[in-house]
Amino acid sequence: MTLQIVLARKEHFCASHRLYNPDCDEEWNRHTYGPCSNPNGHGHNYFIEVYVAGITDPLTGMVMNLTDLKKILQTVILDNVDHKHLNLDVPFLQGIIPTTENVANAFWKELDPHFPNGSLKKLVLHETDKNWVEISR
Amino acid sequence: MTLQIVLARKEHFCASHRLYNPDCDEEWNRHTYGPCSNPNGHGHNYFIEVYVAGITDPLTGMVMNLTDLKKILQTVILDNVDHKHLNLDVPFLQGIIPTTENVANAFWKELDPHFPNGSLKKLVLHETDKNWVEISR
Amino acid sequence: MTLQIVLARKEHFCASHRLYNPDCDEEWNRHTYGPCSNPNGHGHNYFIEVYVAGITDPLTGMVMNLTDLKKILQTVILDNVDHKHLNLDVPFLQGIIPTTENVANAFWKELDPHFPNGSLKKLVLHETDKNWVEISR
Amino acid sequence: MTLQIVLARKEHFCASHRLYNPDCDEEWNRHTYGPCSNPNGHGHNYFIEVYVAGITDPLTGMVMNLTDLKKILQTVILDNVDHKHLNLDVPFLQGIIPTTENVANAFWKELDPHFPNGSLKKLVLHETDKNWVEISR
Amino acid sequence: MTLQIVLARKEHFCASHRLYNPDCDEEWNRHTYGPCSNPNGHGHNYFIEVYVAGITDPLTGMVMNLTDLKKILQTVILDNVDHKHLNLDVPFLQGIIPTTENVANAFWKELDPHFPNGSLKKLVLHETDKNWVEISR
Amino acid sequence: MTLQIVLARKEHFCASHRLYNPDCDEEWNRHTYGPCSNPNGHGHNYFIEVYVAGITDPLTGMVMNLTDLKKILQTVILDNVDHKHLNLDVPFLQGIIPTTENVANAFWKELDPHFPNGSLKKLVLHETDKNWVEISR
Repeated sequence: MTLQIVLARKEHFCASHRLYNPDCDEEWNRHTYGPCSNPNGHGHNYFIEVYVAGITDPLTGMVMNLTDLKKILQTVILDNVDHKHLNLDVPFLQGIIPTTENVANAFWKELDPHFPNGSLKKLVLHETDKNWVEISR
Repeated sequence: MTLQIVLARKEHFCASHRLYNPDCDEEWNRHTYGPCSNPNGHGHNYFIEVYVAGITDPLTGMVMNLTDLKKILQTVILDNVDHKHLNLDVPFLQGIIPTTENVANAFWKELDPHFPNGSLKKLVLHETDKNWVEISR
Repeated sequence: MTLQIVLARKEHFCASHRLYNPDCDEEWNRHTYGPCSNPNGHGHNYFIEVYVAGITDPLTGMVMNLTDLKKILQTVILDNVDHKHLNLDVPFLQGIIPTTENVANAFWKELDPHFPNGSLKKLVLHETDKNWVEISR
Repeated sequence: MTLQIVLARKEHFCASHRLYNPDCDEEWNRHTYGPCSNPNGHGHNYFIEVYVAGITDPLTGMVMNLTDLKKILQTVILDNVDHKHLNLDVPFLQGIIPTTENVANAFWKELDPHFPNGSLKKLVLHETDKNWVEISR
Repeated sequence: MTLQIVLARKEHFCASHRLYNPDCDEEWNRHTYGPCSNPNGHGHNYFIEVYVAGITDPLTGMVMNLTDLKKILQTVILDNVDHKHLNLDVPFLQGIIPTTENVANAFWKELDPHFPNGSLKKLVLHETDKNWVEISR
Repeated sequence: MTLQIVLARKEHFCASHRLYNPDCDEEWNRHTYGPCSNPNGHGHNYFIEVYVAGITDPLTGMVMNLTDLKKILQTVILDNVDHKHLNLDVPFLQGIIPTTENVANAFWKELDPHFPNGSLKKLVLHETDKNWVEISR
């Protein structure tokens, strides 16, 4: 029997965004996004969870040092998005409609290279207590 | 590398139920279900989560429009079970002992045809903060 | 400066109920209680919090021993209402419409004599995450 | 012994805001508000709780009908702030720096006239899980 | 009508402790504290909430700058108790049986001088999700 | 289409621990574990979740009787670790550095033989709200 062991970490950031596709007209945007397309935007307390698989190092008893995991999340994600406007302030989100799906996907692309090959197993992005997106390999 | 992206939504309803198998005697029911078999029933604040996989539409940035997902959950599930007695008031639960397993399974059968083939990946039904059931394909 | 110190304890029970005033007609009940008046009832995961004021005993460092507080809540409240129908199964709720207000008030009357005079300061009864009632002296 | 009974209701909205006092210079704003003064704003999942005191009507068993309470919160608060920018989109917040204190205070002024004299006892506004403001009379 | 406005902040720390009164014998300690008196101690994820009353400064829109409140909590409380043994490692808890009541009271004494006279209104210390103590003036 | 159905249960315990590898020197321990290596230890409110897969018994409507699942968790895990020091008091953790990974792994080994072959699908151990480990087969 082989077991998989995964270390998970949850972090918080708050940001604003607006759902709007400039290639479509106002009616399409209003119909598709409803109040999420309001011109001045709105915001959320987002929560991001990352799941890292590995083997437990017998010396440390850890899959990965939580200090390192926190540092990656802080510098790669939180420093770029916390207290920011996702449409306007985040270089790696430029040109992307910041739906939960698209933001989660962009986070995955930023984070994945910082982990040993294939060890980033899942990323969850919560927009509210009731809506979230999960990406997994 | 192929990634799976899943959109999740959580909804709430309150309902009452009684665990009792009429094909078995009182002693069996009391032994099997304990206070859950009390004749007048009891109830819960249930939470249902659905997980829908897909591909992110480049036009909308969405796997599925959350408005549509909410509408499906409202009409197929919530309108039928919220503020109801699961043993007595719900057509699609007739003849079913409303354990969390059986209710989750019945919800799956009701919901699955409303999603593109195979895209309903997981359904979670929480009976309390400490007990829940997950169905997945 | 005098400070007040209060010990709080939270417990859980699940129960069903129906909001219906037999002295009024169907239309009044439907108008007043909506789906809460459905004939077969519905239910909730209730949470009860009690707040007991006192002075910290220098020998124990406690306002009240939590073991005693738990025992009072168990025997006076939980044993009577957990997995029960509040309209039908609870002697001290007979003849009472089991709104959160009325149930909280009945709980207060049952609990208050078990605490030193005036030390029961507050009782909170949560019907859902979004609705609750607080009674205080 | 007279007891106070209070009915509480919690609602959610998401909005964006920016903390910035136009009467002060950039340095003061940056020093006072830190990243909360970022030009493009940020946002939160806010939760508002209202606490209404009264006497329990013997006919209904209620301090106030929850349906009415929900309607007041929906029309007076949520319809005005949900999915909005608090600095730009809300008439009753014009000219106000939308700190949690100021927004809670503005909500109080809007809500208070809708309740019987003095019955609005407390209003709590949560900006995050860790920060909130309580106003009470 | 005068309203009271209160700013609240919640912080987390984890610590271990043992409930044991060296002036009493083993039997008394076992009877009074149960498993909380186990010789090697146990621990909790504690949450502390502080409530600070004041008037909203018209320049900042704040009762108190949250940055300052966080700094007080960090230096006065968290730096002293996070990842510590409350019986052994905390100077201001020496000689105190670390019940929630006693720890909350000690925290109050440490924190109160850091706030304008009388503005620290309430302190809540959560030992678990189900047990907590509130101190208020 | 074959569906998997999984029953989940969550339980709580509080314990203390210290992260320290006696085979390494102080500097290594301090660098690797930071404040988690403080000599007198610290503690947490841990939550353990177990996920058991099976087929729903048509007689009971259950994958497994929750009463049995609770009994296994109580006797195999909670009785051994609740209100204990994980480094000192738990036979099956002797010689193990009690990181979340190692403790979760030890719990898996203890629990797995109590379930039908291969039916224990996942075990989650939460050390705090922000850190947890998942083991799955």
